[in-house]
Amino acid sequence: MPRVSQAHLDAKRRQIIDGAKRTFTRNGFHASSMQDVLAETGLSAGALYRYFRSKEELIQAVAADAFGEMRAAYESAVHEAPLRPLPDVLTGVLDVAFRKQSELAGASDPQAFPRLVVQVWGEAARNESLRAALRDGYDRMRGIWGELITAYQEAGQLRKDIPTDHIVRTLMAVTQGFIFQKALFGEEVGEVIRDGLRALMMTDPAED
Amino acid sequence: MPRVSQAHLDAKRRQIIDGAKRTFTRNGFHASSMQDVLAETGLSAGALYRYFRSKEELIQAVAADAFGEMRAAYESAVHEAPLRPLPDVLTGVLDVAFRKQSELAGASDPQAFPRLVVQVWGEAARNESLRAALRDGYDRMRGIWGELITAYQEAGQLRKDIPTDHIVRTLMAVTQGFIFQKALFGEEVGEVIRDGLRALMMTDPAED
Repeated sequence: MPRVSQAHLDAKRRQIIDGAKRTFTRNGFHASSMQDVLAETGLSAGALYRYFRSKEELIQAVAADAFGEMRAAYESAVHEAPLRPLPDVLTGVLDVAFRKQSELAGASDPQAFPRLVVQVWGEAARNESLRAALRDGYDRMRGIWGELITAYQEAGQLRKDIPTDHIVRTLMAVTQGFIFQKALFGEEVGEVIRDGLRALMMTDPAED
Repeated sequence: MPRVSQAHLDAKRRQIIDGAKRTFTRNGFHASSMQDVLAETGLSAGALYRYFRSKEELIQAVAADAFGEMRAAYESAVHEAPLRPLPDVLTGVLDVAFRKQSELAGASDPQAFPRLVVQVWGEAARNESLRAALRDGYDRMRGIWGELITAYQEAGQLRKDIPTDHIVRTLMAVTQGFIFQKALFGEEVGEVIRDGLRALMMTDPAED
């Protein structure tokens, strides 16, 4: 039997995750079966089950992949100088990341991907292992965000006497609400929330 | 056949909603059946189906009821003078409202009720009529919040040149993220977010 290279295994795994993301985004998580994912990826059942034993394992991988993309987007924002206004960074990165995920998922409906995310939340509310996976993803995000917020605190743009992580958790709450509103209300959420953050932060209108 | 008074009908409806809230909170939405709700309320199937024809109609009523409670809590905050710091109002009302809902639901686990809410979001992401019901609930909340935020804008505590509704949507995003974090991470979310909002709003530490 020929040895299979790691690069080949990784590429196959990538192919499955991409196909699963398209399937789940198009049909929703509940209405998708492993059979649907097989049809989408064009793989055999044996090949698919070698990587993922259940729909639950697949959705965890899809979620981890989306988290990874989001983290990468915020990481570039951290390393960008000079510091842009925080409301722009926050909603800008979210808008771009969601547009990209929707494209990867082959979704023509811009609400399809955020709706998948909210379905995953609902699943996580009743499924311990998916909850642990989401929590892990959010904890890693907190690390990246921590660097970003520390930079704003050190620049005197945010209060220094409040723990960085509390500010991070609050801004993550804003992004979670952003996803919820995009999924359920479907309006131009990014612009609205950027505005709202500006008002809360009492930034000088001249700086907008 | 004796005529049934409106008060009697209302009380019966109330009894069903309370029982359904307890059932759904305890077992989650998916794992609960109409049979479970019957057992919890002690009513006959005929009596239950006279008011609600499906589990979906029931969860809509439970959601509408919870929205009503939240609106009432924010309404009292609107009519309270002088204006308290916004971060206190926001998380204070949420904390109290969620504690009350958990009590009404007879939940010993403080995460049980927020988890039900997140499950309902997940359902709404794939169910048009539940989505419309949630949207209606949020639209009414926006009205109440609009009054609250206008008062802060007029008092010079928030920028006046930004549409009130954008600030409202942003603060609602914070509360949605609060619910998500309470459901999935289960820490003392209220305190964390109150802190974070203070930092964003750059309030004078002496005023805390």
